[in-house]
Amino acid sequence: MRRPSPGAASVEEEFLDIAIDRDSDEPIYRQLVRRIQAMIHTGALPVGFRLPPERRLAASLGVNRSTVLNAYRELKALGLVDAHVGRGTAVLQPPAAPARHGAGTVADVPWRQLFRGDAARSRDPIIADLLATTERRDLISFSIGLPAPELLPIEIVSGLTDDILGTAGPASLLHCPTEGHTPLRDTLAQWLTSRGIHARTSEVLVVSGSQQGLDLLARIFIDPGDVVVVEEPSYIGALHVFRSAQARLIGVPVDADGMRTDILASVLDHHRPKFIYTLPTFQNPSGAVMSLERRRHLLELAARRQVPIVEDDPYSELRYGGDALPSVKALDERGLVIYLSTFSKVLLPGLRIGYMVVPPVVLRRLVLAKQGVDLHTNTFGQFLLERFVRGGHFSAHLDGLKSAYRRRRDLMAAALQGDSRLSLDVRVPDGGFYIWFGIPNGVNQGALVAAAADRGVTFLPGQACFAAEPAENAIRLNFTHCAEESISVGIGRLLESVREVASTTRRSSREGASTSPVV
Amino acid sequence: MRRPSPGAASVEEEFLDIAIDRDSDEPIYRQLVRRIQAMIHTGALPVGFRLPPERRLAASLGVNRSTVLNAYRELKALGLVDAHVGRGTAVLQPPAAPARHGAGTVADVPWRQLFRGDAARSRDPIIADLLATTERRDLISFSIGLPAPELLPIEIVSGLTDDILGTAGPASLLHCPTEGHTPLRDTLAQWLTSRGIHARTSEVLVVSGSQQGLDLLARIFIDPGDVVVVEEPSYIGALHVFRSAQARLIGVPVDADGMRTDILASVLDHHRPKFIYTLPTFQNPSGAVMSLERRRHLLELAARRQVPIVEDDPYSELRYGGDALPSVKALDERGLVIYLSTFSKVLLPGLRIGYMVVPPVVLRRLVLAKQGVDLHTNTFGQFLLERFVRGGHFSAHLDGLKSAYRRRRDLMAAALQGDSRLSLDVRVPDGGFYIWFGIPNGVNQGALVAAAADRGVTFLPGQACFAAEPAENAIRLNFTHCAEESISVGIGRLLESVREVASTTRRSSREGASTSPVV
Repeated sequence: MRRPSPGAASVEEEFLDIAIDRDSDEPIYRQLVRRIQAMIHTGALPVGFRLPPERRLAASLGVNRSTVLNAYRELKALGLVDAHVGRGTAVLQPPAAPARHGAGTVADVPWRQLFRGDAARSRDPIIADLLATTERRDLISFSIGLPAPELLPIEIVSGLTDDILGTAGPASLLHCPTEGHTPLRDTLAQWLTSRGIHARTSEVLVVSGSQQGLDLLARIFIDPGDVVVVEEPSYIGALHVFRSAQARLIGVPVDADGMRTDILASVLDHHRPKFIYTLPTFQNPSGAVMSLERRRHLLELAARRQVPIVEDDPYSELRYGGDALPSVKALDERGLVIYLSTFSKVLLPGLRIGYMVVPPVVLRRLVLAKQGVDLHTNTFGQFLLERFVRGGHFSAHLDGLKSAYRRRRDLMAAALQGDSRLSLDVRVPDGGFYIWFGIPNGVNQGALVAAAADRGVTFLPGQACFAAEPAENAIRLNFTHCAEESISVGIGRLLESVREVASTTRRSSREGASTSPVV
Repeated sequence: MRRPSPGAASVEEEFLDIAIDRDSDEPIYRQLVRRIQAMIHTGALPVGFRLPPERRLAASLGVNRSTVLNAYRELKALGLVDAHVGRGTAVLQPPAAPARHGAGTVADVPWRQLFRGDAARSRDPIIADLLATTERRDLISFSIGLPAPELLPIEIVSGLTDDILGTAGPASLLHCPTEGHTPLRDTLAQWLTSRGIHARTSEVLVVSGSQQGLDLLARIFIDPGDVVVVEEPSYIGALHVFRSAQARLIGVPVDADGMRTDILASVLDHHRPKFIYTLPTFQNPSGAVMSLERRRHLLELAARRQVPIVEDDPYSELRYGGDALPSVKALDERGLVIYLSTFSKVLLPGLRIGYMVVPPVVLRRLVLAKQGVDLHTNTFGQFLLERFVRGGHFSAHLDGLKSAYRRRRDLMAAALQGDSRLSLDVRVPDGGFYIWFGIPNGVNQGALVAAAADRGVTFLPGQACFAAEPAENAIRLNFTHCAEESISVGIGRLLESVREVASTTRRSSREGASTSPVV
């Protein structure tokens, strides 16, 4: 990854040609960003200049349209252009340059040579790219796992906020222990116990979102080359973290009854993983629920091999049909399970507060890692959640969510199933946030991302959810965030995009053209 | 670090003898915790049983008193004992055990064997131990860099909170971009520009406290064995992070004019560091301010060697005397400086919000790392800070802090200098949070921590602030957090402790006893 000669990076930064270096290890979209950025800064592209439509520039450069789409998105994030679906992309007034050349665009420091050698392992920008769309109001987003904004309990939060500032005051805005605000840990232990998970306060760790929990687990357990067993498909954020820690990922397929524990058994005959990562309930992205029989089988296999299980459980409170099952942690008699959950899905994602239940010896290691990572999780959010849960607001809030989300799930499923011209595989889950939507085999996911973005619709390409080669051609659609009318409109546009790409694919496969993935 | 035989950990967990294994790689205080914990769980130590005073147990076991102190603290954090200064430490009712043996105390999983091989590098618990004291009301704490609770702008925060929930509503509680809430990045860019640091929005990254900024820098730059130059003494949280990333730390001494850039020059003749980490203004812990001449020299050296500078600048707004100097970043004409600051010291530490100014190529890498670490920084806190700064509340707030902190600094300095029986070295800084307090050479810092804790006073042992062997016997005293009356009382008790330990040291050095450090 490192370049040999000092100063090479700065020379490149000034290089204004739009020519693309296909042998470079820099992604093509980054090269585009850099070159267009330089042309804007030198004035070669004046303010108001309209960049060519994505489709046209892609054709003229001989690159995938999604590459141009990504480049334009980043130019927008850099504040250099403004883009609106249907109105094109235009150059903005660049921000005032500092007195001299200190903005970093012509740096004396060869930054790329200084980055650590293995940084390439964590360079897939998909999560950041998805989060960057959260400030866009012009998109129908099925891509991120967000709650419905209009169902957030703003009134209650407002009352609790006043109450906290009035009674706890400064303590709610100062530091707190790395392990978490003790009353919140107490309250979580009680709440978990009421759900069948016996947890002591001393076993509860508050983390800055369950994403941080995954990252801390990777930090304390994974040496480069260590094996981690994951489901396939699985949560992209977990795959990202384990890959960044240089784990070797071994996938076990998921079917309608969750992880195939028969296959897990033979995996454990050949590998000794640091842990088994599972989302047993309303799995992300497939929506599957692991059967009770398989939960027991998983525990039995893990006990026999002394392999810990990491159970990620953000969605189990959101059940729209069928009978509830105990979590794997609730069935765990031997302390095999590290349990991870969050309030992001069922309450307030913006607080970034999750929690874990772990044996004290593991908790101590996690705390030693967390102290250097962020000292502790934000205090005010912890006070807020503690009062929300202790005040008994949670059950009523969940009831409201469940009835709204059930309707949205049904509406999206009906809209997806309404197109009889395509052979589509719609998996309607009993709960959670996502429909896992099988698209025709020939449809390229990169092309579909671009075609849907042209229509103002986003989704998560399912191929990003696999540890190795994707086993099926499916995409993940979130049904909880968009209002009902947007769901109908958005799914209509998505199906149009599928038909368009399917017909292009048929044409281009006749012409022998190649396709490349978006991520 | 790994134990050879499977199951060894579980056998150890049940081992009830109070004997200490001095050859173990497990710290002695941890062995104590584990054994006492086991005795409580088996009922060998019944509820209400008073543990022996720290001093007596330490003597009977032949260990340092601070070791016992640490063990008792952890037992308290585990909820197994309750301790009050002056009233001793008693066994509590253990929390209800789960149905079977699933609490992890007798686990089937050999957890210690599963931890990654290099975890030992980040196992100094000092930061977490300090933060654990934040919930204690019975201590006079000079140990943590906390603002004065009674000066927090609770009224303004309360008004802004209502305003945010009323106008922005759900957006303030949902996800936001990994880079940060765009209006906050805009506002910070303007605020920084007003302070002489030209920053574009696209160069500003919001992080979960500047601690996270340091951790992200370590993640993208440091390969094991890479050299990082640090000041000596320096911020313990930075040393912790760089050590955890397996950097090789090279220290450059700090004097009254900041980092000795003449020594830096010769360091750079022999090493090629990934970056130079500096706290040029009101240095933590020494309070030193780097002179203008040395700032320019630092930049010149860095430019010549193409080595980036990481400038950590949490305190520069808090000047109580002398003339302001431009930050190193403000003097930087070549894009050499990565700038890091935070609102934790000047506003609300509990929000965990810091920010960085970095070239776009570095920002992109930081974002790729941050997306996996915590997705993004908590949204509500970002809305709050944005409105606080944009609303113009910051200057008035800073004025109030400065006049109060100036008084507290002077009061602490006078109290420290009041004891003519000891030869004490009190460095009174022109700003910031800390007095760097030189204690007599023979006084052992571990013994002083214990003696002061017996009197209900805490401080940061200065030896933790050095990359290698401590160059001086000094401790760090925060003067901003405690009210004026507590400062007088606390410093009185601290000086008593110094006298006590100094006299013990004189006695024991006559008797040939050895001493060991606390951390």
